[in-house]
Amino acid sequence: MPAARGISVPGFRGSGIWCGIKSRRRADLALVVSDVPCASDVVFTRNLLAAAPVRWGKTLPSRGALRGVIANSGNANACTGEGGLAAVARISAEACRSLGLPDRSLLVSSTGVIGVPFPTDRIVRAIPRLCRVLSADGLSRAGDAILTTDAGPKRGARRVRVRGGTVTLGAIAKGAGMIAPSMATMLAYVFTDAALPVPDLRKAFRKAVDLSFHRIVVDGDMSTNDTAAIFANGVCGGPPLAGKDLAAFAAALESLLCEMALRIVRDGEGTTRVVRLRVTGARSDRQAEAAARAVATSPLVKTAVFGADPNWGRVVAAVGRSGADVDPAKVEVSYAGEKVLRRGMAIDRKAEKRAARKIRKDSYDVDVDLGVGAGSYFLVFSDLGHRYVEINAGYRT
Amino acid sequence: MPAARGISVPGFRGSGIWCGIKSRRRADLALVVSDVPCASDVVFTRNLLAAAPVRWGKTLPSRGALRGVIANSGNANACTGEGGLAAVARISAEACRSLGLPDRSLLVSSTGVIGVPFPTDRIVRAIPRLCRVLSADGLSRAGDAILTTDAGPKRGARRVRVRGGTVTLGAIAKGAGMIAPSMATMLAYVFTDAALPVPDLRKAFRKAVDLSFHRIVVDGDMSTNDTAAIFANGVCGGPPLAGKDLAAFAAALESLLCEMALRIVRDGEGTTRVVRLRVTGARSDRQAEAAARAVATSPLVKTAVFGADPNWGRVVAAVGRSGADVDPAKVEVSYAGEKVLRRGMAIDRKAEKRAARKIRKDSYDVDVDLGVGAGSYFLVFSDLGHRYVEINAGYRT
Repeated sequence: MPAARGISVPGFRGSGIWCGIKSRRRADLALVVSDVPCASDVVFTRNLLAAAPVRWGKTLPSRGALRGVIANSGNANACTGEGGLAAVARISAEACRSLGLPDRSLLVSSTGVIGVPFPTDRIVRAIPRLCRVLSADGLSRAGDAILTTDAGPKRGARRVRVRGGTVTLGAIAKGAGMIAPSMATMLAYVFTDAALPVPDLRKAFRKAVDLSFHRIVVDGDMSTNDTAAIFANGVCGGPPLAGKDLAAFAAALESLLCEMALRIVRDGEGTTRVVRLRVTGARSDRQAEAAARAVATSPLVKTAVFGADPNWGRVVAAVGRSGADVDPAKVEVSYAGEKVLRRGMAIDRKAEKRAARKIRKDSYDVDVDLGVGAGSYFLVFSDLGHRYVEINAGYRT
Repeated sequence: MPAARGISVPGFRGSGIWCGIKSRRRADLALVVSDVPCASDVVFTRNLLAAAPVRWGKTLPSRGALRGVIANSGNANACTGEGGLAAVARISAEACRSLGLPDRSLLVSSTGVIGVPFPTDRIVRAIPRLCRVLSADGLSRAGDAILTTDAGPKRGARRVRVRGGTVTLGAIAKGAGMIAPSMATMLAYVFTDAALPVPDLRKAFRKAVDLSFHRIVVDGDMSTNDTAAIFANGVCGGPPLAGKDLAAFAAALESLLCEMALRIVRDGEGTTRVVRLRVTGARSDRQAEAAARAVATSPLVKTAVFGADPNWGRVVAAVGRSGADVDPAKVEVSYAGEKVLRRGMAIDRKAEKRAARKIRKDSYDVDVDLGVGAGSYFLVFSDLGHRYVEINAGYRT
């Protein structure tokens, strides 16, 4: 596992332990909790067959005032019926009791395999120990305990100067396969000592999520468990963030989530290359998004990226079937700044060879102009190679 | 290449030669033409960035009275601008002149790489020779000349007893990757000596296409060149087909196209297994189709099929994001008749192990019941394995 700096955020303590779900004593139970009440916000998967913790979480009346999160890896608690919901309620109650918090003060998340009986007892038995080892430097251990097929830990931090002090943001995340649309098989939690009202927190968080987690595509799937949450405990002191300070906080949050999203897509199951795709000239932003998602999820495009082939013909074929309006006489495509299709026509083999030389690297830009309007959209997607097949053909066996 | 019987249809002659587009003297130019006028129908790709032959073909006033088809492989004539359209017109004019037919009597098709200059001169120069070698047993050679990455020829035939005689149907097709939605990178031509009016022909053909080529999914892409056409020259004699005879003809046509479609999906780039997916219990047929297509194009589902893993969790995740209504407490999934998810809950590991044993074969059924209504849809899709990656990462290089 590559090294990653530990993170800490004033007023938050974390822990991560092994409770017996995963094999080989890899940490599988995580807790992060604020010492004081928080403003909070949660974004859940839109998958209609959402897993029990998501279904339970959506009913929480306390979603704007949660104190933290307890999460397990190794089992998704999905397709577990009413028993799965009861398990979530039991975990929540036990953790809140151990921490001396009111019931329903914690978000509960699960990630891992689907359809295996959920080990509620193991988790519940481990909760007192999980609470005992909470520490100010334990957020990173919590981050390790939510990983599944991830190649390494995903954490990041930002510090923002504001009137009267410095605000800290720390994030832990997991997710490697099944990314996009809508943050698939992804857990991400942001902890900050900033003080700000729930509506402002929510607005900044939703915008940052839309510009980060919603813009990454590994394989186009969306999981039953995706959850992103933010907790702001205000212990940095001072008045609630406003004006320039709020804007600086929002910018730092966006930057932090984009870093986390990029880590996820780079760590996509079997990823060898990452493409930054920008679609412009669309009838609307929504049409640009449709075209971008068609390209980013096309197996033909993704295998060409794996093969370092600037195969714009496949990009064009995907755009043409996306439902987005496109002018055949105006559509243009560039690879790494090298135009290969101009006004709907191939330039020449030389341009393509120049493009081919430029894309033999870890990441590069692809630009598509649909030639009909001013709508645009960007996203980041990974390639599809042998490693993806290996990981996903043998995940459970 | 596996052996395939030759086909012949009374009143049709065919030929297939090498004109210098493909390397290694593999046939790349095909012609099939009726000795007498035909009733005809053509279905084109819905890709907005359709290639020149499709754009040209859509403007043909003679689409109900075409005499046959000239097609090249090795170059798709896509993204070639006005020059590409002019090339199609020239090929059509030259072929019709050589055959002594009125201009615009032939359908023109192209398949192959996109964005390489189109070798119009080579094709036009070869047309007289292509016409000279036309023969009654040449339909199979025409079928060989339209192949690209196909592992073998795709042809089939049916004979139907009707009042006063026997009607013959013969089909040639190509297509291996980029299949679905809507018949991607596929060419398919049906030739028959049946006599029937254009409206009846059209109705039977459209229905058969919907139940065959529209139901196969290799990688979810749709090409710029897809074309399916039928030509009925009436030389079997007798009155136009009607009543029971027309129904028998329509049934044979459907059976023939389903055989062609199954050949295409089995020959999908890198296919090792094929799944027959049936979605039932949907709010509507359209919602059932949305759910089926989400499952059939999910890389996670397709790699699990490759790995012989009855990973119904991934099926459920794809259904949940498909936009189709689904009842989490009623959704059910079976692999090869073995139920693994009942009323939204995993049955047990034993059921899954039984399913795992049953799906270690070339093809099997997956059934998904959404539990909300009476809508249903079926389709056939292929897996995604190493061979797919190999073929598509290196197609042009």
